[in-house]
Amino acid sequence: MIILGIDPGTRFCGYAIIKKENGSIFLLECDCLKLGAQKPMPERLYIFANRFEFLVKKWEVTDVSLETPFLGKNAQNFLKLGYVCGILYFLAQKYKINIHEFSPREVKLSITGSGGASKDQVSYILYKLFPRLQPGLRDDATDALAVSLCGVWANRMQRFLHQ
Amino acid sequence: MIILGIDPGTRFCGYAIIKKENGSIFLLECDCLKLGAQKPMPERLYIFANRFEFLVKKWEVTDVSLETPFLGKNAQNFLKLGYVCGILYFLAQKYKINIHEFSPREVKLSITGSGGASKDQVSYILYKLFPRLQPGLRDDATDALAVSLCGVWANRMQRFLHQ
Repeated sequence: MIILGIDPGTRFCGYAIIKKENGSIFLLECDCLKLGAQKPMPERLYIFANRFEFLVKKWEVTDVSLETPFLGKNAQNFLKLGYVCGILYFLAQKYKINIHEFSPREVKLSITGSGGASKDQVSYILYKLFPRLQPGLRDDATDALAVSLCGVWANRMQRFLHQ
Repeated sequence: MIILGIDPGTRFCGYAIIKKENGSIFLLECDCLKLGAQKPMPERLYIFANRFEFLVKKWEVTDVSLETPFLGKNAQNFLKLGYVCGILYFLAQKYKINIHEFSPREVKLSITGSGGASKDQVSYILYKLFPRLQPGLRDDATDALAVSLCGVWANRMQRFLHQ
């Protein structure tokens, strides 16, 4: 099971790739893709699609785990998250990858034990679980790692390893 | 100039392809793609992407004209329209196609002279402009034809031909 976790965004898009093998979890990659706020939307989405198609093939991803967009104050931002999700769905179907979706609350609950936890708390726990995680990562990247973990956790703690 | 007009949807997606040549407009295709309400979303989006990629290559589309989604009562439906638009943006960038977006009001105003016109009025005028348009088309298809016309009209009437 190779899980690609995504925190969708059209400016910064966090992603993490983890592997579950014999009950252990290995971190393969965790970073943030900068899509360039000044670039036209079609160009950003093209960059996004190509990068994730590359990652899916490189790591032979079997599952995508995704934070479900929610409607905040800005409806246009919500629609833009839809653009990104549409491309992920398309790629998932193309490569026969399973998709799992989690609400932001489910992600926080799963990582910290509290659905109302702050981003800092989530990040703090992830750095404990993966001590060799590159320091100073953007929230987008750690959020993606959190959602990728949701994709493998089945409400019980597992032994963690990392590379 | 070959314009693909789209009325985005994840159950029914209307599309129309028109050609502008020497000041005349030719209707090449106008129909509605059924995406199957029962199918999982990734499968629908995959069908959508493949069909439109096929149409873009078949007709050598130069421009895509799109009705901008607006947030109605159902936020999830709005997000789903985002999925479709994301794939269109991606294809537009892949094939170096221009994208034009129009609000529903702009489309109605452009076709009927009134931004508050009904769907029936829009459809009535389109059947006058294109008398050989297949009768009984769904609103999705005629809406797509309307938005494709918006893509070529520059606020003046033109001579109409159709195939």
